[in-house]
Amino acid sequence: MRLSQYYLPTTKDISKDVVLESHKLMIKAGLIKQCSSGLYTLLPFGYKVLQKIEKIIQEEIDKIGAMRCSFPIIQDAKLWQESGRFDSYGNEMLRIKDRAGHDLLFSPTNEEAVVDVFRNQINSYKQLPISLYQINWKFRDEIRPRFGLMRAREFLMFDNYSFARNMEEAEEIYNKNGEAYLHIFNRLGLSAIPMQADNGAIGGSCSCEFQILAESGESKVFYEKNCYEKFCELCKKENLSWKELKEIANGKTWAWTEEKYTEEEVKNNGFDVNNIVETRGIEVGHIFVFGDKYTKSMNVKVKGQDGKDFYPQMGSYGIGVTRVIAGFIEAKHDDKGIIWSKSISPFDVMLINLDPKNEENTKKCEEKYNELLQKGFDVLYDDTDKSIGEKFTIADLLGIPKQIRIGKKGIEEIDR
Amino acid sequence: MRLSQYYLPTTKDISKDVVLESHKLMIKAGLIKQCSSGLYTLLPFGYKVLQKIEKIIQEEIDKIGAMRCSFPIIQDAKLWQESGRFDSYGNEMLRIKDRAGHDLLFSPTNEEAVVDVFRNQINSYKQLPISLYQINWKFRDEIRPRFGLMRAREFLMFDNYSFARNMEEAEEIYNKNGEAYLHIFNRLGLSAIPMQADNGAIGGSCSCEFQILAESGESKVFYEKNCYEKFCELCKKENLSWKELKEIANGKTWAWTEEKYTEEEVKNNGFDVNNIVETRGIEVGHIFVFGDKYTKSMNVKVKGQDGKDFYPQMGSYGIGVTRVIAGFIEAKHDDKGIIWSKSISPFDVMLINLDPKNEENTKKCEEKYNELLQKGFDVLYDDTDKSIGEKFTIADLLGIPKQIRIGKKGIEEIDR
Repeated sequence: MRLSQYYLPTTKDISKDVVLESHKLMIKAGLIKQCSSGLYTLLPFGYKVLQKIEKIIQEEIDKIGAMRCSFPIIQDAKLWQESGRFDSYGNEMLRIKDRAGHDLLFSPTNEEAVVDVFRNQINSYKQLPISLYQINWKFRDEIRPRFGLMRAREFLMFDNYSFARNMEEAEEIYNKNGEAYLHIFNRLGLSAIPMQADNGAIGGSCSCEFQILAESGESKVFYEKNCYEKFCELCKKENLSWKELKEIANGKTWAWTEEKYTEEEVKNNGFDVNNIVETRGIEVGHIFVFGDKYTKSMNVKVKGQDGKDFYPQMGSYGIGVTRVIAGFIEAKHDDKGIIWSKSISPFDVMLINLDPKNEENTKKCEEKYNELLQKGFDVLYDDTDKSIGEKFTIADLLGIPKQIRIGKKGIEEIDR
Repeated sequence: MRLSQYYLPTTKDISKDVVLESHKLMIKAGLIKQCSSGLYTLLPFGYKVLQKIEKIIQEEIDKIGAMRCSFPIIQDAKLWQESGRFDSYGNEMLRIKDRAGHDLLFSPTNEEAVVDVFRNQINSYKQLPISLYQINWKFRDEIRPRFGLMRAREFLMFDNYSFARNMEEAEEIYNKNGEAYLHIFNRLGLSAIPMQADNGAIGGSCSCEFQILAESGESKVFYEKNCYEKFCELCKKENLSWKELKEIANGKTWAWTEEKYTEEEVKNNGFDVNNIVETRGIEVGHIFVFGDKYTKSMNVKVKGQDGKDFYPQMGSYGIGVTRVIAGFIEAKHDDKGIIWSKSISPFDVMLINLDPKNEENTKKCEEKYNELLQKGFDVLYDDTDKSIGEKFTIADLLGIPKQIRIGKKGIEEIDR
């Protein structure tokens, strides 16, 4: 793609309300444009990142046997009245009336709809376990939307729902999802620590948040230093398993969200309180077994091997896809701009013509551009007549991992 | 994927309200499940088709230089008040109030939002032309949603918007989109006839609908027999150009929607009225130049080469992606089931174990399954213990283009 023809509205003009570095960089580098409070357009440069993340998630989740669907965004209130959440969800749920006066809502999450699909067809233990997922837009009417894609009202979410015969099987699926998450974040080039998280009112120990460490994170998090180092070491492997992760501290928890952290817990797990690091995190994923909460409230039973009906045990697994973009930039930038990993960079190579007025140099650039395209690389080619200084500034801001500069000094390849 | 582990709720139980063949087949073959009036879940088998269509559209539209974005689904009423459409759009627009009492809406189309993004950055003729598109969910609150995905309230739509310096350039872009549409429908394995269409209140000759011929189509359409034969012949080429299409009748129109058809028009174009075929069509796409309607109403000007400000000339180009699935099935089925084209079939091969109780036979099937997977084929493997008759019935219903049957007679390969 030639920069002269690319819709990339880079800018230095950032409103004072924009405080988070990732939010600033996304506006500066032309990834997003705000449309209204908590509502953003992903511009071409931002959308490419989104699509790459989506693809990685799909590939890893398909591998563990879950099946992608697409549930309606607008849902009937009736379904949510069955579970009781139409009343209990609160003001974050966007409630709507259609032209006939029926109550609808913009789905903020999808348990009810997936249970409804499930009960349509599944009636025997033989058909279990199954997992259905989607990657789709959600809306939560935040009272104070802020930080750009970090806490937007409309956001793209991966959400996977599993149905199992019993808690043991539910835990197995939970572990498989945990492992898939490790692979996903590894491929994204992100270190996201699995941390024991709060279960809300539901209980059970299978609840884990994936947190990216960042000073600007919204929530306080804690980890044990030595275990964290082991974790970082393990993350260098391509196919880190959930079992290896558990072995870091012999099955004991070594990282906690604020809600779960106590000094007592640290001591009980055999750690020294002085080795605990307190920092801040950005939650980008959550895996969670919640049992029969919805199958019970929506009265969904299937026949067991013993001939008796039972309530399937459910789990849900989410990743905030748009939020991952913000979290990534928050973790991977310097004072010049974004530093993409190869796997999600909008382009593979940024080719820069440093002397566009020189015909010979331009010819070299055009040849290189065509050569790279033919080799299958996705190239952003700065063919504009901006100054060398401006070109370097923009290239560093955009953060494409490989820069090829062609000018008086010849060809230079630089890693961002 | 093993059929025994796949979420594919095939059924014979179809409600009397379901009248359209494509709608019946989509329920029978487990592609969709209705959630509420005009609202559907795409189940795994249906979602795979959707994703393949989406990919083909993206590839062909990227080739003509348009850039994919993602605009917010929920939009601020303010933007639509600027263009006057918040009041004029009618009851099909789903109007919403958020928790703060602000007026929002579920985007039924996207002209306003794209103009808003455009004016954020583009201020000179030098930055034109540009085209921005998305593939995203829309909602139109149909008074009588029916026919499944054919006329659903929530639907996936590809929508592309172009901005040009003048009408000549706008027409060039229109022609490029027309050509891309020919390639898209060709790759989908669909014959969609470009037909002169009504412009509504806007005028100009650049308005063309792409219609799939089907007895059950919602609208009456007309075409000239000889030209249609030439068109079908041309469609066998892989890279049919818009120019070749225009040459079919020396630039004259030979296919019309009901609104545009008159006998006078037929005679004026030099055709014999007796050669006109009246049939029915399903609209799956529309390309359209509407000039400065929105740039004027939203007061968006850019600086021209002569230093004077001007209103850019816009065009819009849409394909109903979910509707294409329904239209495809309407056009491509027999009394046994769906007949997918290779390009959008959910799986490449359906492997059928005809004698699952026989260990030797099952071993052969497993070997074949692994061999096919290793070769990169996406295989649906019927490993269930259903009867041979049932297995044939399901395989024909599902319509995967290649069936490999393994049983007492050995291996049989059958094209569906």
